[in-house]
Amino acid sequence: MARKFKTEVDASAILPPREELLATIDRWLAEDIGRGDITTRYMVPAGARAALALNTRHDIVVCGIDIAGAIFMRHVPDCTYRVVAPDGTRAKKGDVLARVNGPAHGLLEAERTALNVLQLLTGIATLTARYADLTKGTGAQLIDTRKTIPGYRHLSKYATVIGGARNHRMRLDDGILLKDNHIAICGGIAEAVARARALTPSLTKIEVECDRLDQVKEALEAGADVILLDNMDAATMKKAAKIVDGRCELEASGGINLETIREKAQSGVDYVSVGRMTQSAPAADIGLDVDIET
Amino acid sequence: MARKFKTEVDASAILPPREELLATIDRWLAEDIGRGDITTRYMVPAGARAALALNTRHDIVVCGIDIAGAIFMRHVPDCTYRVVAPDGTRAKKGDVLARVNGPAHGLLEAERTALNVLQLLTGIATLTARYADLTKGTGAQLIDTRKTIPGYRHLSKYATVIGGARNHRMRLDDGILLKDNHIAICGGIAEAVARARALTPSLTKIEVECDRLDQVKEALEAGADVILLDNMDAATMKKAAKIVDGRCELEASGGINLETIREKAQSGVDYVSVGRMTQSAPAADIGLDVDIET
Amino acid sequence: MARKFKTEVDASAILPPREELLATIDRWLAEDIGRGDITTRYMVPAGARAALALNTRHDIVVCGIDIAGAIFMRHVPDCTYRVVAPDGTRAKKGDVLARVNGPAHGLLEAERTALNVLQLLTGIATLTARYADLTKGTGAQLIDTRKTIPGYRHLSKYATVIGGARNHRMRLDDGILLKDNHIAICGGIAEAVARARALTPSLTKIEVECDRLDQVKEALEAGADVILLDNMDAATMKKAAKIVDGRCELEASGGINLETIREKAQSGVDYVSVGRMTQSAPAADIGLDVDIET
Amino acid sequence: MARKFKTEVDASAILPPREELLATIDRWLAEDIGRGDITTRYMVPAGARAALALNTRHDIVVCGIDIAGAIFMRHVPDCTYRVVAPDGTRAKKGDVLARVNGPAHGLLEAERTALNVLQLLTGIATLTARYADLTKGTGAQLIDTRKTIPGYRHLSKYATVIGGARNHRMRLDDGILLKDNHIAICGGIAEAVARARALTPSLTKIEVECDRLDQVKEALEAGADVILLDNMDAATMKKAAKIVDGRCELEASGGINLETIREKAQSGVDYVSVGRMTQSAPAADIGLDVDIET
Amino acid sequence: MARKFKTEVDASAILPPREELLATIDRWLAEDIGRGDITTRYMVPAGARAALALNTRHDIVVCGIDIAGAIFMRHVPDCTYRVVAPDGTRAKKGDVLARVNGPAHGLLEAERTALNVLQLLTGIATLTARYADLTKGTGAQLIDTRKTIPGYRHLSKYATVIGGARNHRMRLDDGILLKDNHIAICGGIAEAVARARALTPSLTKIEVECDRLDQVKEALEAGADVILLDNMDAATMKKAAKIVDGRCELEASGGINLETIREKAQSGVDYVSVGRMTQSAPAADIGLDVDIET
Amino acid sequence: MARKFKTEVDASAILPPREELLATIDRWLAEDIGRGDITTRYMVPAGARAALALNTRHDIVVCGIDIAGAIFMRHVPDCTYRVVAPDGTRAKKGDVLARVNGPAHGLLEAERTALNVLQLLTGIATLTARYADLTKGTGAQLIDTRKTIPGYRHLSKYATVIGGARNHRMRLDDGILLKDNHIAICGGIAEAVARARALTPSLTKIEVECDRLDQVKEALEAGADVILLDNMDAATMKKAAKIVDGRCELEASGGINLETIREKAQSGVDYVSVGRMTQSAPAADIGLDVDIET
Repeated sequence: MARKFKTEVDASAILPPREELLATIDRWLAEDIGRGDITTRYMVPAGARAALALNTRHDIVVCGIDIAGAIFMRHVPDCTYRVVAPDGTRAKKGDVLARVNGPAHGLLEAERTALNVLQLLTGIATLTARYADLTKGTGAQLIDTRKTIPGYRHLSKYATVIGGARNHRMRLDDGILLKDNHIAICGGIAEAVARARALTPSLTKIEVECDRLDQVKEALEAGADVILLDNMDAATMKKAAKIVDGRCELEASGGINLETIREKAQSGVDYVSVGRMTQSAPAADIGLDVDIET
Repeated sequence: MARKFKTEVDASAILPPREELLATIDRWLAEDIGRGDITTRYMVPAGARAALALNTRHDIVVCGIDIAGAIFMRHVPDCTYRVVAPDGTRAKKGDVLARVNGPAHGLLEAERTALNVLQLLTGIATLTARYADLTKGTGAQLIDTRKTIPGYRHLSKYATVIGGARNHRMRLDDGILLKDNHIAICGGIAEAVARARALTPSLTKIEVECDRLDQVKEALEAGADVILLDNMDAATMKKAAKIVDGRCELEASGGINLETIREKAQSGVDYVSVGRMTQSAPAADIGLDVDIET
Repeated sequence: MARKFKTEVDASAILPPREELLATIDRWLAEDIGRGDITTRYMVPAGARAALALNTRHDIVVCGIDIAGAIFMRHVPDCTYRVVAPDGTRAKKGDVLARVNGPAHGLLEAERTALNVLQLLTGIATLTARYADLTKGTGAQLIDTRKTIPGYRHLSKYATVIGGARNHRMRLDDGILLKDNHIAICGGIAEAVARARALTPSLTKIEVECDRLDQVKEALEAGADVILLDNMDAATMKKAAKIVDGRCELEASGGINLETIREKAQSGVDYVSVGRMTQSAPAADIGLDVDIET
Repeated sequence: MARKFKTEVDASAILPPREELLATIDRWLAEDIGRGDITTRYMVPAGARAALALNTRHDIVVCGIDIAGAIFMRHVPDCTYRVVAPDGTRAKKGDVLARVNGPAHGLLEAERTALNVLQLLTGIATLTARYADLTKGTGAQLIDTRKTIPGYRHLSKYATVIGGARNHRMRLDDGILLKDNHIAICGGIAEAVARARALTPSLTKIEVECDRLDQVKEALEAGADVILLDNMDAATMKKAAKIVDGRCELEASGGINLETIREKAQSGVDYVSVGRMTQSAPAADIGLDVDIET
Repeated sequence: MARKFKTEVDASAILPPREELLATIDRWLAEDIGRGDITTRYMVPAGARAALALNTRHDIVVCGIDIAGAIFMRHVPDCTYRVVAPDGTRAKKGDVLARVNGPAHGLLEAERTALNVLQLLTGIATLTARYADLTKGTGAQLIDTRKTIPGYRHLSKYATVIGGARNHRMRLDDGILLKDNHIAICGGIAEAVARARALTPSLTKIEVECDRLDQVKEALEAGADVILLDNMDAATMKKAAKIVDGRCELEASGGINLETIREKAQSGVDYVSVGRMTQSAPAADIGLDVDIET
Repeated sequence: MARKFKTEVDASAILPPREELLATIDRWLAEDIGRGDITTRYMVPAGARAALALNTRHDIVVCGIDIAGAIFMRHVPDCTYRVVAPDGTRAKKGDVLARVNGPAHGLLEAERTALNVLQLLTGIATLTARYADLTKGTGAQLIDTRKTIPGYRHLSKYATVIGGARNHRMRLDDGILLKDNHIAICGGIAEAVARARALTPSLTKIEVECDRLDQVKEALEAGADVILLDNMDAATMKKAAKIVDGRCELEASGGINLETIREKAQSGVDYVSVGRMTQSAPAADIGLDVDIET
């Protein structure tokens, strides 16, 4: 039986605004359907109805079940869509995820689009959950990156939250991340942070990337809100955590995978960031079958 | 050294129309950049320039190099982008794929979007090429399916052609594919094909899905243009090929993977179709580094 | 009394997708209404209602009655629109085609747009029906062309189907039509067809234009799906039909009008194509009057 | 040789704004081309060029030659388009109207769209010129109506001006036209005109429709800017002209055709309005051929 | 208690078309909300409801109360919005203008946008009413100009009508206003008016700007529909009114403020035009508070 | 002579993205121009050119001079626009701000839109500068609010930066601002902050609104990034600053005007926020005259 962990998180504010999401869905549908599934329209009587169920063929963390529903309901306003396993559910092989019932023409036209996006997002959430499970109890939070499929920034970052991660920044204009060359051009960490502080909206944080411990000290003194520890080993990160001693936040980044994440997460940092969960997660295997229960 | 096989194929007609592609690029860029990379804009002088190179970190079949260029040039009209390894190139680890030179602000803003899409499409083409290599010399052509990431239908199908496959249909309205239930509703294969023939544009083919050999005979007599052999083993497919004897085309479909594709392709069919190359290909690892040659 | 022949054909898959059609209707309405019919808004009380009927002033084949309804309902969501003579009806002078009832302001604002498009489409269907009647019993199907008013491709091709024709291809990317110069450039019919077969989606047909009988033989051997007989007289077309003997399809094209269509359709071809029915059909004379029955 | 009368009229302000026109052209092109003319793209080398000429096959008043050019240049930015016979030219059978030179792929893709719109607009201008010629020397101006193909309001009204007419109003919000029922609802012509005068922008005229001479007097006294004489015979219109005596303008409307227009135009009215020139003009026969001169 | 004067005026035809207004509202909402009020979404339970009231904190002429409602209802389709003081109401400090009740998340997200536009439009109407009050009983009508905040042309001109003014022209293409340089280039007022009369839609008026009384005579003889008296003192304007003697309309324009408007309006002109009411009106102080009555 | 202070600030990242700004400009231009300035088009020869200068008629802080230029160049791509007084310049009465030279038709069509937006933004910057001057040397930074004209969020916040302020947050999704009711619903400041910390992107700050000093202590302990002191007097704010002692940031908000700002800014807070500078600034008086220098 499916168990939920969704109630802890209302991640809807990560999704694109509703109007934008609907416009995206319209483009998705148009891309596959064009002016209609001519096979179905010419063969199946206009009034025919279908009762279908989304089933998973392996163990997953469900993500995108409401998006799949929005696709069906956008294309077939008079269909009924009931979610069985909400986003965040750890579903087992064979579990029914949702049931949809309505005019056959429209449901068959929307099927491929709904499946394609559900398989993609569930794939991301399922892989994220594996990373998140490995950080449990370490004191560090798993965070994501900007390595997302273009057109899927918000949906991908929604999927990582569903999988158990926290977001880093949504896009380039809602966070300051000072790297080597920024600092070099400005003439030092102190100068770079001061310059950022004068221009950035007052509710946006300033993060400084550091490769060495002396830079960590410098960034701390300059008033950085967050320090990114770039490609450091766990031992060095422990020293950084000691230096900072809670006066600003620390993020571990670079080359973190399923083998290394736990050790790095235990080093005393606040965040560990991973790119591949939004870029190379295999699609989940979910099917749409005739619903025998209805 | 990179070797091309692109000259054999001008696949540009598979891409979305230019205006539509530019609109898509605008949405992709907006999603990551918002109103600007505030870090770079506040730190790097407005006039600064950068010279960068796209490098691959493993062996790939390049795909999307012109799309990556279009992204840079759309965001930074006064940059220079030179392709070294055109789409279809089998590039080796360490090869430079393209060089870009221009205003630092804009190039850094467009970097992540360009990389994200290039890594996705190259991943698809690289996996497709593995399947295509396995069908060489069998008389069958590798074809793709509608299992594509929504928003990437045309780009994905372009990537499969670059990887060595042929397209099946682009979307639901440019082909007739009669399945079991269509046929059942119409009262038989003959009736279904006749009905389709009366309504479909005269330049569009009619394909009939068959599970058994008696259906193959029936579809042939009904005048089907293509017969899809669904989940048949190689031996049965050979019998189907014998029955049809060139009077219509045959497609092998269902459960085809890297292990089974060659045997199925050798059974006498015209096409073998594979879904997972557009759905679960891992992203290629390609980076954008300071260009030391310039 | 109006007689229907619509039930034979569900041509809705020829229409543009619903979202696209609504966007088109919005542009049409905006073009005529701007910010409102200021005369009516300033003179007629906001709550006034009107009951109106669409009447034809001569014999027609109705086409666009649902589009006209969509225009009224898009602009006046709370109106009632009842179709009396569905698309395909052969209506007589004086017949009521539809009744509309609702807020006077909105109905009067939408009236001109609804009439203008209904008169256009009915004009096309009515002229097409004259051509279609002349091909009855000949074994050939009447097909249309790409000579449509820009912005009306799908609506025009819908109107020809309603009038009794079949579509050829919808646009340039869903069919291959090899002409003289394509063949010359490729170095012969065989080469051109082979090239097309390697690149075109597997469900799309390849048509070859031929001026002479020796070309017809060549195209047949090359494996063309359809052969277009360009500007041939009926006697030559009969010889072509004999040569082909059912192994591929034949289309008669060029200079076909109301005088010549029957003879050409009787020559043994599968299709006869006519351009002027979508380009020069006079608008039907349909009016919107106060509905005396209600 | 072609003779121009265009220099008298700069009708460009009747066309839609440039950005809107380009968006319309984009939709037109997309409708016919989709993702490309696959026949040409697969057969003709990417670098091939073409030199083509637009020729008329009968006597016409040219209209849309710049729109046709805009279509070619929009789709093929690097083509050269030279107008030989500008809009308004009375061209003879066989005259070259324009020459276009550039990449073959793009020109062949844009050809059908350019021809379709040029044939439509030239058809309208040619028919309008017949009406305009019949009003010459009568003191009345030929004006058009709102009976235009939806999507072509501005282009149609541009074509009527090119053909020699003047526009009436562009859409419902830039003129007041008080009809019977407006007047009835308001309680009389005087009340209706007063009400309109209080609400309408001060630079917009108020026109009143009259069926009888006593209404003409009433409208004149109420301060109407224009009086529409609805379906009156020439004799009655002469009496109306006498009554008004230059104190406001007069428009003859209703049932005006090529037989009746001259007599009505001679009755002393300022305007005669005709609907069918924008609704039922046959398409001009214009072709695009290889340009032998270049 | 609030008193209405709205019933005299149905100014809805001045607003942008509904579809356009909704698109504008969508942009406004997106600008402030982005992907959501993350504070509220993370803190307030999804099912929570709110009952709120719009209150004015000083005396105003209400304008935009339906626009504010449209904003709430667009973002929160299942809220209830009841107008207490319709547009045109002279509301007193402390008056409730409207009540809104519905899901807390959405109402709080839409609040700022609704308030910002209501405060702007009410500011314009309130200032306009001061000018309008000063013209009462003078025989002249207060009219507005094109000095409006870009993006607010129609809303601003709606607000001036609500405040008691009449519109001049809506935009550059629905009126002819001949100025010095136009006339100089054409070679005189008579020539300029004649040229305009040949080209302008027959329902559009022609206005001529005059600095001196001899120009007024010339414009009258040329058949101008309206004469604009530019920066004349009241005495000169009286002379102009005497010359014209009702044969065309007169507009006083230039440097008209709260001190000078009454004298100028009494000079016998038909219109006095004022720009600053749409450009520099201070925002009204209106708040959204918890509704204690509900 | 104009003096600049712009070089200190590159505020371009506050503006909307270029494509979005151009789309906005297109809407602005369409709103005023429609299909063209018919007066100018019918009177002024198509080839005529104009040389014009933007002049200020009182002392201002220039803002929007590049936007005005973008408007001219968008509508008239072949015009020349030279900025004399860049954004941030404190210009004196009579100073030339920019010169524009090009085709007369287009420049006259764009004039009103360019002036309207320049007058609005310069008005905001000029008023902001008065507030900013009053905070100089106090240690506090002037910040803005979300009280902006809808459609002008980014342009208004750009104008406040040009006038000398810093932005607060750009919109609801890029900052957490916990108010009374949020805290009440969550069960206390500590709980609310903890909840926000789990869900908000890691680079976004959390601000807590406090009315009393005990709340300030609580928020500090909960780990708030910023504390908003709501409607406190200067003395209380000083106590708050003492409590916090640099461990988090402080913002003074509520009822701050030109009289009170300096005292509040001197209380030890980091920020003082003011709403009216973006809502009620009078439009600057800037004209476009014939350029006598050219």
